[in-house]
Amino acid sequence: MTANPKSNSGNFFEDFKPGDTLIHATPQTVTEGDLALYRALTGSRYAQYSSAEFAKAAGLPGLCADPLHAFHIVFGKSVPDVSLNAVANLGYADGRILRPVLPGDTLRAESQVIGVKENSSGKTGVVWVRTKGVNQRREEVMSFVRWVMVNKRDAASPAPEEVVPQLPEAVSPQDLTGYPEMKSWPFAQAGSRHVYEDYTVGERINHINGMTIQEAEHQITTRLYQNTAKVHFDFHSQKESRFGKRLIYGGVVISIARSLAFNGLENTGQVLAINAGTHVGPLFAWDTIYAWSEVLDKAELTETAGALRLRLVAVKDQNPGAFAYKDAAGKYAEGVLLDFDYWAAIPRAR
Amino acid sequence: MTANPKSNSGNFFEDFKPGDTLIHATPQTVTEGDLALYRALTGSRYAQYSSAEFAKAAGLPGLCADPLHAFHIVFGKSVPDVSLNAVANLGYADGRILRPVLPGDTLRAESQVIGVKENSSGKTGVVWVRTKGVNQRREEVMSFVRWVMVNKRDAASPAPEEVVPQLPEAVSPQDLTGYPEMKSWPFAQAGSRHVYEDYTVGERINHINGMTIQEAEHQITTRLYQNTAKVHFDFHSQKESRFGKRLIYGGVVISIARSLAFNGLENTGQVLAINAGTHVGPLFAWDTIYAWSEVLDKAELTETAGALRLRLVAVKDQNPGAFAYKDAAGKYAEGVLLDFDYWAAIPRAR
Amino acid sequence: MTANPKSNSGNFFEDFKPGDTLIHATPQTVTEGDLALYRALTGSRYAQYSSAEFAKAAGLPGLCADPLHAFHIVFGKSVPDVSLNAVANLGYADGRILRPVLPGDTLRAESQVIGVKENSSGKTGVVWVRTKGVNQRREEVMSFVRWVMVNKRDAASPAPEEVVPQLPEAVSPQDLTGYPEMKSWPFAQAGSRHVYEDYTVGERINHINGMTIQEAEHQITTRLYQNTAKVHFDFHSQKESRFGKRLIYGGVVISIARSLAFNGLENTGQVLAINAGTHVGPLFAWDTIYAWSEVLDKAELTETAGALRLRLVAVKDQNPGAFAYKDAAGKYAEGVLLDFDYWAAIPRAR
Repeated sequence: MTANPKSNSGNFFEDFKPGDTLIHATPQTVTEGDLALYRALTGSRYAQYSSAEFAKAAGLPGLCADPLHAFHIVFGKSVPDVSLNAVANLGYADGRILRPVLPGDTLRAESQVIGVKENSSGKTGVVWVRTKGVNQRREEVMSFVRWVMVNKRDAASPAPEEVVPQLPEAVSPQDLTGYPEMKSWPFAQAGSRHVYEDYTVGERINHINGMTIQEAEHQITTRLYQNTAKVHFDFHSQKESRFGKRLIYGGVVISIARSLAFNGLENTGQVLAINAGTHVGPLFAWDTIYAWSEVLDKAELTETAGALRLRLVAVKDQNPGAFAYKDAAGKYAEGVLLDFDYWAAIPRAR
Repeated sequence: MTANPKSNSGNFFEDFKPGDTLIHATPQTVTEGDLALYRALTGSRYAQYSSAEFAKAAGLPGLCADPLHAFHIVFGKSVPDVSLNAVANLGYADGRILRPVLPGDTLRAESQVIGVKENSSGKTGVVWVRTKGVNQRREEVMSFVRWVMVNKRDAASPAPEEVVPQLPEAVSPQDLTGYPEMKSWPFAQAGSRHVYEDYTVGERINHINGMTIQEAEHQITTRLYQNTAKVHFDFHSQKESRFGKRLIYGGVVISIARSLAFNGLENTGQVLAINAGTHVGPLFAWDTIYAWSEVLDKAELTETAGALRLRLVAVKDQNPGAFAYKDAAGKYAEGVLLDFDYWAAIPRAR
Repeated sequence: MTANPKSNSGNFFEDFKPGDTLIHATPQTVTEGDLALYRALTGSRYAQYSSAEFAKAAGLPGLCADPLHAFHIVFGKSVPDVSLNAVANLGYADGRILRPVLPGDTLRAESQVIGVKENSSGKTGVVWVRTKGVNQRREEVMSFVRWVMVNKRDAASPAPEEVVPQLPEAVSPQDLTGYPEMKSWPFAQAGSRHVYEDYTVGERINHINGMTIQEAEHQITTRLYQNTAKVHFDFHSQKESRFGKRLIYGGVVISIARSLAFNGLENTGQVLAINAGTHVGPLFAWDTIYAWSEVLDKAELTETAGALRLRLVAVKDQNPGAFAYKDAAGKYAEGVLLDFDYWAAIPRAR
């Protein structure tokens, strides 16, 4: 690329070697400004991420960034090195939220290549990376695996030796960490009295409300995380793309759906782990996101705190009370946007 | 509602009992991030809410939230309990701004039901609530009455005993509080030399400028206050509504109109009381807001500070210099959006 | 203007007298909220303006406002007095960035009229002002000259004596100030290893990426700087204007183009001086901004720090790799938006 030696055109499939570590650019100090923007852009109402008083009452160190906010920041930093030439963001696994991110903390990110597999077409391959976010005290605040389909620079280049990582179906409850004791929990201010014991495995919850996303909203949100992937921003070049328009960053869907899930899951604000996630369908401006949840599993953490394993399903332009999901053959129903499997902390009955 | 026992579908007319207290969810810590967003979203230029140095020179404790910003936050918290099933937000009265809200303060809100009256249709009723905002020191920072028309859950349910509160036409000047001495006031930096004595009762001011609102702007603003009423967000369901589109939150109109009112009322930044307010007509994206004001009354507060009682009228897509308002029969002119009556502090001649 | 004596209709050409000083309204305390918004609205990724840790490692006092952010704030304050009746913003010169702006600092602005020249039409004139930004310690943080074409109030009023200031073609490298030692510079986190010595005069860099701007984005950005010029906001009145729509504030183009320039100029985040700038063509919502740069000059500052004089060219809806600029006659190519000449600090080889 002698014609343009200083600009970054991103890595191609051939550039990823298992074992390599990629140090991602642009560490970011997370401030109260970021937190206010996250709230205003997603509509989040979980009390421990809205009120410093509530957070402290619940046993957290103070007002911190929503774990999904921190996740998007760490993810965003990995984009220029991992997915600038990605065809698709295929999935997440083994995501662990390890430490709170407080205003003033600075996050940086790095990724290790843990798998590569060329596709049969010979034009693309799948790359697995484990990305971790680290704060200014060199403490790991989170870690997750994601895999993406990436273009080859040259279809004629030989296929690398196949390395496919073994990934857990879900984070084990014993590995959950970073939750407060939840000995005190101001239920009235949280918006619900429903505790761990009130939820049953298999239960489905219709979150009712919908939110229609505009171009300006998803662009501001995605830049908040310093994710500047061109599919989300450059309408001129996207006119020639498959969809003919800009694709909304999948992280926008995750956070809006989680904010909608407040209605019925008010006390589950703290995400502890991301077990799996698939961006099933594309979202565009003027689409309306709705969400429903299913309780997949439960785990007692302490005498006063439990965890729910939840499936969060986002759908577009349809009643979430229809609980659209998959058919018997495993094919997702029309309009499903997101299938997201996570653990969240919840107070127990007292 | 056994089909969906965990989600909140809001209260209906039958649920409101005079004397009941509703504790609203999601306390919110107001940060410098919120203040910056309020400024960027409304275009406010009142010096005491823009500059910490000016605020201190003027006798305030420092940079605080614009009182209307705090009002929208407290209002927003009441929405899920009071107006989720509202047909119309009918009015405000007796609004008292009691204490400044500084960055770091946490606001929570509660409402007392003070009146109910079923409408003759038998399908709806009017509910009056007094909502108050309280900070983390349990100090009341504001209090206001609003009344809304709410759907009945069941048209067949019997009408409640009618309770209609007596409300003052305006807050009495003796009850105004929380204004600084205004002994020093950096006039050049405030943008105007006009003081209390320069304004006369009956005087009307054309604020000239206009601002066109976009979908993304009103959504971000409304979420900043954690007001998530679906009429403002869910385009998919609003397509079937009376207007066929999303309605902009009335608080957006109030704050944009007040920001436009800077041009001619530069030294009146601090709202002390909300006497009355009516959302006369709906606002939609791409509409342009203009504003004019009328001086309704004046009151000397101290040797150096006075208060103006002002009517702020917002109109859409028309020259505010035409001063469109009401006809002799009391019917509002075409294009009037807002009729808002408030007291604001202003320095006196020195 | 007795009909509307309290509102500001702005100054006309006749109102500007060389030697006069204009004190601009609304000092602004710059907070972490402003910095987060600037990042989310522009997509800036320069490490020293994103991470407090990086900033300190690089020798800066901490996380500060991007110098262009501070420039837009100071510029915005001058608009109501200087350019409310401007027909065109003609250029910038001799812009000096003197001191960092840290969160908590309050900026105010004043301008001195340094030149006036009536145009041959007799309907407009050119006004030159030197605007400076001052912090709460009365320290000058920046200073720049700009000139605008302003309408006359009355075409019949006599032409003033012509005063045309002498302006330098560029700020001299000896006058550059406010750069850190850059003894330590965490290159991996900055996103590039390219240093002063890697850039050659005449070299051109294609920044590749594009960003499409929406109405809501430019309005929020422009209000962040408290610039409320009606051409950017009032769609209703702009329907009757030359373009039939709202014009995007030129400062939006400058900052988006600089953010795009990160790709190839990662280590040049700190702007030290603005030598010249011309807004060549108008930008509207849905246009996509691309950018390319040319190295115009180089200067060694210390053993560890250098400066690059860069031309930043923003173009719309076209491949920036075509390096569209001017023809031999000096006429700008179709689609050029901005021609911006500045000095930026960069670490030297070590």
